[in-house]
Amino acid sequence: MPEYKAPLRDTKFIMQELLDCETHYEKLGYEDATPDMVDAILTEASKFTEQVIAPLNQIGDQQGCHWNEGVVTTPDGFKDAYNQYVEGGWPTLSQDIDFGGQGLPHSLNNAVSEMMSTANHSFAMYPGLSHGAIATLEDHGSDLQKKMFMPNLVSGEWTGTMCLTEAHCGTDLGMLRSKAEPNEDGTYNITGSKIFISAGEHDLSDNIIHIVLARLPGAPAGVKGISLFIVPKFNVSEDGQKEDKNQVACGSIEHKMGINANATCVINFDNAKGYLIGEENRGLNCMFTFMNSARLGVAMEGVAAAELAFQGSLAYAKDRLQMRSLSGVKNPEGTADPIIVHPDVRRMLLTQKSIAEGGRALISYLGQLVDITHAEKDETLKVEANNKLALLTPIAKAFLTELGFESASHGVQVYGGHGFIKEWGMEQIMRDTKISCLYEGTTGIQALDLIARKVLGSKGKLLEVFASEVAGFCQHNATDENMKEFIEPIMKNIGQWQQLTQTIGDKAMANPDEMGAASVDYLMFSGYVTLAYFWARMAKTAQQKLAEGTDETKFYEAKIKTARFYFQRMLPRAKGHVACILNGADSLMALDAEDFTF
Amino acid sequence: MPEYKAPLRDTKFIMQELLDCETHYEKLGYEDATPDMVDAILTEASKFTEQVIAPLNQIGDQQGCHWNEGVVTTPDGFKDAYNQYVEGGWPTLSQDIDFGGQGLPHSLNNAVSEMMSTANHSFAMYPGLSHGAIATLEDHGSDLQKKMFMPNLVSGEWTGTMCLTEAHCGTDLGMLRSKAEPNEDGTYNITGSKIFISAGEHDLSDNIIHIVLARLPGAPAGVKGISLFIVPKFNVSEDGQKEDKNQVACGSIEHKMGINANATCVINFDNAKGYLIGEENRGLNCMFTFMNSARLGVAMEGVAAAELAFQGSLAYAKDRLQMRSLSGVKNPEGTADPIIVHPDVRRMLLTQKSIAEGGRALISYLGQLVDITHAEKDETLKVEANNKLALLTPIAKAFLTELGFESASHGVQVYGGHGFIKEWGMEQIMRDTKISCLYEGTTGIQALDLIARKVLGSKGKLLEVFASEVAGFCQHNATDENMKEFIEPIMKNIGQWQQLTQTIGDKAMANPDEMGAASVDYLMFSGYVTLAYFWARMAKTAQQKLAEGTDETKFYEAKIKTARFYFQRMLPRAKGHVACILNGADSLMALDAEDFTF
Repeated sequence: MPEYKAPLRDTKFIMQELLDCETHYEKLGYEDATPDMVDAILTEASKFTEQVIAPLNQIGDQQGCHWNEGVVTTPDGFKDAYNQYVEGGWPTLSQDIDFGGQGLPHSLNNAVSEMMSTANHSFAMYPGLSHGAIATLEDHGSDLQKKMFMPNLVSGEWTGTMCLTEAHCGTDLGMLRSKAEPNEDGTYNITGSKIFISAGEHDLSDNIIHIVLARLPGAPAGVKGISLFIVPKFNVSEDGQKEDKNQVACGSIEHKMGINANATCVINFDNAKGYLIGEENRGLNCMFTFMNSARLGVAMEGVAAAELAFQGSLAYAKDRLQMRSLSGVKNPEGTADPIIVHPDVRRMLLTQKSIAEGGRALISYLGQLVDITHAEKDETLKVEANNKLALLTPIAKAFLTELGFESASHGVQVYGGHGFIKEWGMEQIMRDTKISCLYEGTTGIQALDLIARKVLGSKGKLLEVFASEVAGFCQHNATDENMKEFIEPIMKNIGQWQQLTQTIGDKAMANPDEMGAASVDYLMFSGYVTLAYFWARMAKTAQQKLAEGTDETKFYEAKIKTARFYFQRMLPRAKGHVACILNGADSLMALDAEDFTF
Repeated sequence: MPEYKAPLRDTKFIMQELLDCETHYEKLGYEDATPDMVDAILTEASKFTEQVIAPLNQIGDQQGCHWNEGVVTTPDGFKDAYNQYVEGGWPTLSQDIDFGGQGLPHSLNNAVSEMMSTANHSFAMYPGLSHGAIATLEDHGSDLQKKMFMPNLVSGEWTGTMCLTEAHCGTDLGMLRSKAEPNEDGTYNITGSKIFISAGEHDLSDNIIHIVLARLPGAPAGVKGISLFIVPKFNVSEDGQKEDKNQVACGSIEHKMGINANATCVINFDNAKGYLIGEENRGLNCMFTFMNSARLGVAMEGVAAAELAFQGSLAYAKDRLQMRSLSGVKNPEGTADPIIVHPDVRRMLLTQKSIAEGGRALISYLGQLVDITHAEKDETLKVEANNKLALLTPIAKAFLTELGFESASHGVQVYGGHGFIKEWGMEQIMRDTKISCLYEGTTGIQALDLIARKVLGSKGKLLEVFASEVAGFCQHNATDENMKEFIEPIMKNIGQWQQLTQTIGDKAMANPDEMGAASVDYLMFSGYVTLAYFWARMAKTAQQKLAEGTDETKFYEAKIKTARFYFQRMLPRAKGHVACILNGADSLMALDAEDFTF
C-alpha cells in the first residue's frame, strides 16, 4: 500500500498563495481562521490522517464490514480511529457554534476532508454522510429538531445518513414508494425499504440519524409528492437524549467492487417514528441543498484518488529499475534505470499530478464560494457565488471523478503486473474510486444537469458569469509574455465553450435529444477548460513568487512545468470532445432498441 | 451476472461475409474447413460456452483459487468443465494432425477462443496458456521433445505455462536470474523463482509443462544470454508417459483485482529437470514466436470484455425504467421509460458495440493472416501477412484492451449504483479485463513496440504495407456515393498517420525520448484509424447485401448505423491524440525526478 503523506505544501500554496484565504476569511468575518490557526489545523490534520486513518485503508478493504442479524461490524481499528476523530474535535470544525461547532470556514474543513478521503476513502465516508444530515437539519429543521439532533451530530457522537434510493428508483426519485403516515402527536410512521445507504448501520457511534424521503398519504405523484423526514435508529427525547430502539433495521449489506470498509446498507423502516423536515411535499427541494454539497464532497474524492495514485506511482517509478532510457543510460551504477526516466511513465505521473493539484485548486475555489454563500453579507456577491457553484458543481463532480479514476488506472499501469496484485494497494484505489463516478448522480446525470438545467436552463447566464471571470483573468494578463502560452489557449477555448453552447441550444430547440447526445462530451470539454483556468492561475502565482525572490525556486518552477504539461498534453483532449459534440445526436438515435443485437 | 449469448450471427457475418473464409480456407488448402464444418463448430462452441463455461464465471470469481501446501484447487465446477472441454476435443481444433490435432485453421479456433474468453475470462486462460506452450514446442522443439510432450498437450490431458517474469524483472527480461546447469545426460537442472505464472498450478490436468527462461553458466549478460527450457511438473519418459514428481513447487498464489479463478502462481524450481528448447542463449527469440500469438490472444480478451459488457448493459438498458425521454414519453404504460431511450446511455451501448464488433473484425482478419503465415505456399504473400501481423499486433493488443476496459467501465455506469454491486456481475468484467492492459506487455510497452520497433524500426515499411491495403480499399470505393461518409475520413486519417510518423521520426533523430512521449497517443490514434477501416469494410459488405436483396434488412442496416456511430463519435477522438503527439516530449521531460513532489 502506498504510504500516505498529506500534500501540505501544495495545500498551503493553493489556499494561502493562490486563493489568499487570509483576506478571504477576514472579509467574511471568520475571525478565528487566522493564518496561524489555518497552519495549525492543516498540520494536525496531516498527522492525524497519516498516522491514524491511512494505516487502516488496506486492512479495511481486506476485512470489509460484516453483517450479522442486523448488526454491522466495521473492520479492526475503525471504532478506535473514529473515537480519536471525535475526541480530536474534527467533526465540529466548520459547524455552527450554537450546536457545539467551532464555526471555522467550510473551505478549511474541505482541506481536512480531502486528507481524510485520500488517506481512507471508506473511513472518510462515515463523517461525510453526517455532514449531509447536519446541513439538511441546519437549513430546513425546526428549532426543536435542531435541539434534539444537532449537538450529538455535530460532536460526532452520532452519525447521519441520507436515505433516498429504493430498489426501483435511483435517479428517478419521483418513483419512490416509502410511506409516511401522520400520528396524532405530530410525528409520522415511516414504512419502506431503502437501498444503497452508505454508513446506514455500523458500530462507530451510539445513534444513527437517518434523513429519509417518503410520501404522505394522498401526496401528488412524482417528485412533487415527496417529503423529508428525520428517522433516528434510537428514538430521541426532546432534550436530545437517546431512548429506546426505533423500528429501523439493517436488512443486509452489499458486496461491492470497493469501499468495502464502508457499510452500504439495505435499511428497512417498519412504522418507524419520524419527524417531518420542512414543508410537506417539498422534500426534494430540501434534498437539493444537501445534494449539491454532497456532490462537491464526491468531486473531492476524485482529487483524493488522483493524489493517492500519484503518491504510489511516484514512489514506485523512482524505485523500480527496468530497461534503459531511450536517450541513454541514466543510472549507470544500476542494472537498469528507474522507470521514471521513461516518457510514457512520466505522462502517467504528470496526468495524476496535474489532476490532483489542478483539482485541488478547483475544489478549494469552490470551498471559498461555499464560505461566501454562508457568510457574505452583500447579496449580489452571494448570488454570484451561488451561480458559480451551480455551474461548476456538476463539472467538478463528474470531471474530477472521471479523471481521478483515470489517474487510479494509470497507477495500476505504472506498477505493471504488480498493480493488479492486492498487496501493492494500487488496484484498491481504482476499485474504491469507481463509486465516485456513480453515487450522488452518475457522470451522465451530472452532464445532463450541466447542459440542460444549468447552462441552457439559465439561457447561458450561469456560464456567462464564470466565463467573465476567466476572461477578466485573461485580459489582466494579456500583455504578460510569460503567460502567453496559457492565456491564448484559454481565450480560444472560452470562445469555443460559448459557441458550442449556442450550437447545442439551437439544435435542442428542434430535438431535445441533442442535449443528451452532447452532454458528457460537453461536460468533459468544460472540465478540461475549467482546469486550464486554474492551472494558468497557478502558473501566474508561481511566476510572481519567482519574480519576488524565493528559496523555494524548484517548487514554483515545478508548478509552471506542470501547468505546461497540462496545456500541452491534457487540454488538447478537448478537441476530440468538440468533434464528437458537433457530430450530434443522429448516430446515437438511429438504431431501434430491438436492433442493437441479433 | 449478464447471461452470455454467443454472438453467432455477428461472427458468421465477419468470418463468412466480410472476410469470405470459404475462399480463404480453400486457397490455403484447409480442406476440412468447409462452410458446413465452420457452421457446425461455431454452433457447438456457442452451446458449450453458453451452457458449460459461462455459468462458472461468477462463482469462479467468488470462490477464487485456493492454495494449500503447494496444492492449488480451482473453483467448484472448473474441473468438470475442463474435462468436458477435453472430451469435446476443443483443445485439438487447430493443432497439428501429427500430434492428434484436427488441423483446422487458426482463425476458426480464434472464433471459439473468443467465445471462451467472453463466457469466462479466467477459465479460458487455462487452455490459452497451453496454446502458447504448444506453439513454442512446435516451432522450436526437437523431434524427441515433441514426441514426449505434444500429444498430451494437444489433447488437453496436460496443460502448459510460460515462465518468464521474476520479482525484479518483468518487461526487462535481460535482468533475469534463474539458472540452468547442464547435466551429463543432456538435461539441465533449473533453479530459480518465477512469479505471475498464470495457470502455474491447478487441479485441472494430470501434468503441467512449464516453458521456462533461464541462464546457462557463463552466458552473456542481458537478453543475449537467455535460454529456453521445458520443465514438467511431473517428469516424462521418452515415450511421453508421466513419471515421478519433478522439483517444481508452487510457493503461493496471488490475491488479485480480478481473474480470481485463474491461479497466478509463484513457481519455484529447485534443481528441477529441464530440457533445452532451440539453441543456447537464443531463448528470447523462441519466446517471441509465442509472445506475438499470446498478444493476439490478449487483444481478443478486449473484444470479449466489450461484448460481455455490451450484452449485460443492453439487457439492463431495455429493462430498467428510469426518467422520461427528453424528446417525449416513449413508454406511456410504464412508470418511466426504459433507459435505452436516453442518448447518453445509447452512447455507452454503441461504444461497447462498435468496439466488440469492430474488434472482432480486426481479430478475425488477424486470424486469417496467421492462417497465411502457417499454410500459404507463396513466400511473398507470407511475408506480407507477417508484416501486417507485426504492425497490427501491438495495436490490437493495446487498443482493444484499453477500449475493452472502457466498455466494461461503461457497463458499470449503465447500471448506475447497481454496477458497483458484485451480484450484478458488471464490476467483475472491469476487474477481470484490467489484466489484459497489463500482461503480455503493458499498453506502454505495446506502444513503444509499435512506434520504435515496428514503424520507425522498419523505416515506415510496415506501415506502408497496411496503408496500401487501406488506400486500395478507399480507391476501389471512391466513386460509391454511399461510402463517401466513410472513405473520406479514412483517406484523411491515413494521410495523417503517415505524416505523424514522419514528424515523430524526424524529432526522434534529435531526441529519442520523442518516441516514448508520442507512443501511447500514436498507438491510440492508429487504433482508431485501423478500426475505422474495418467498420468501413463492414458497412460496404452490409450495403452490398442490402443491394442484393435480403430478408435480414434490419441486421445489415444496424451494421451501417453502427459504422456511422463509429465514424461520428469514436473516430473523432483521434484528433485529441494528434494534438498531444504534436506537442512533443518537452513538457514530459522538464521535471527532475526529485521535483515531482515537495
